[in-house]
Amino acid sequence: MVKQERAARTRRALIQAAAEVFAEVGFVPASLGAISKRAGVSNGALHFHFASKAMLAEAIETEAAETVRRLTEAARARHGDSLQAVVDATHDLMGTLAKDIVVRGGFELAGDIARRTKSPLRKEWQRWIEDSLRRAGHSGELADQVPWADAARVIVAATVGLAVLGVKDATWLSRQNVTRFWELLLPRLTGRRDTGTLVSAGSRPPAAVPAPARSPRTPPAH
Amino acid sequence: MVKQERAARTRRALIQAAAEVFAEVGFVPASLGAISKRAGVSNGALHFHFASKAMLAEAIETEAAETVRRLTEAARARHGDSLQAVVDATHDLMGTLAKDIVVRGGFELAGDIARRTKSPLRKEWQRWIEDSLRRAGHSGELADQVPWADAARVIVAATVGLAVLGVKDATWLSRQNVTRFWELLLPRLTGRRDTGTLVSAGSRPPAAVPAPARSPRTPPAH
Repeated sequence: MVKQERAARTRRALIQAAAEVFAEVGFVPASLGAISKRAGVSNGALHFHFASKAMLAEAIETEAAETVRRLTEAARARHGDSLQAVVDATHDLMGTLAKDIVVRGGFELAGDIARRTKSPLRKEWQRWIEDSLRRAGHSGELADQVPWADAARVIVAATVGLAVLGVKDATWLSRQNVTRFWELLLPRLTGRRDTGTLVSAGSRPPAAVPAPARSPRTPPAH
Repeated sequence: MVKQERAARTRRALIQAAAEVFAEVGFVPASLGAISKRAGVSNGALHFHFASKAMLAEAIETEAAETVRRLTEAARARHGDSLQAVVDATHDLMGTLAKDIVVRGGFELAGDIARRTKSPLRKEWQRWIEDSLRRAGHSGELADQVPWADAARVIVAATVGLAVLGVKDATWLSRQNVTRFWELLLPRLTGRRDTGTLVSAGSRPPAAVPAPARSPRTPPAH
């Protein structure tokens, strides 16, 4: 393995380890020693890649934002201005949150009051949802009495809520749960009696979508 | 002022100060010294009321849960099993989150990964929403094709999302924003073309509802 490959692999291991330690103890109490130990590298190697804990947190957020950008772009590429792109991206985001601790960390750090920097992650998700709903509105997919901005706000609030609730109970992120959300909302958005040609469960077969870490069949605990 | 009154007042000031300090620096870095200083009492007085920072956090959560319970009970008392009780309680919760730092602290501590105890606040809100939607379903207020449990999940996810987004941008909690949410959702829940006799903006005049801390007219920043 050449030197660059090894360095990239170490960097990746440190980001993964930091996301795990932040998730377990929180950002402020997390120690760099615990992170390098978890990654299986020396303290020196950690400091070679990251000068501070804040830089590790930024790396988590950057990687999480890239993952989210990839999945929204893929959904847009498949479905253009159709609401199906939003439905698919929501399923993919929740599936990714359930299995990828770096993306989950990126979302959580965005809400961590102890960090002063502004995270781009939730903001980018919000912008993409707004842009997608505006496109759906212009292409005539939304019912006349449904302003795209109102629809976007409801979708942003509900998806942020699902992500936050999913941290302590992964069933909120399940395909079944997200499908029910769209089954309830889509008819109202399109003004139809049913979901029409839109697929509430996402247009891709379940195998192509990241599976939740825990059982996706159990409804949220009561 | 008799001794008991003074003690109750000091206790209240400490809870308020702790909520402020936790909101500013986070639970883990917050020091008891900063909290007693903010409350204008001695360290000794703080320790007389609270043996630890964790007990202060619990007191915040307990007080927040009581406030939320009072507002849900008041909405139920006014409107019984009607969805109007849910609409009103949502408006009241968001208005309270905007102006009451103890309630906001209770919601945030519920999501703080650094604390191990399970907060009752979100859970109680979820239970009340579920109970209310089940009642609305049984009383025939929900459309036939809308399962009450699905409706409850969407409302819980969206309200938790609004609360979380409202921490950094209070416009998410505004009466206007909550009203739009209900204008979009109510017709789908009831199977009508409009909101019918239900008032999306809440059944009480604005003056009777706690006002958001910041301008309620500006839409969430883009």
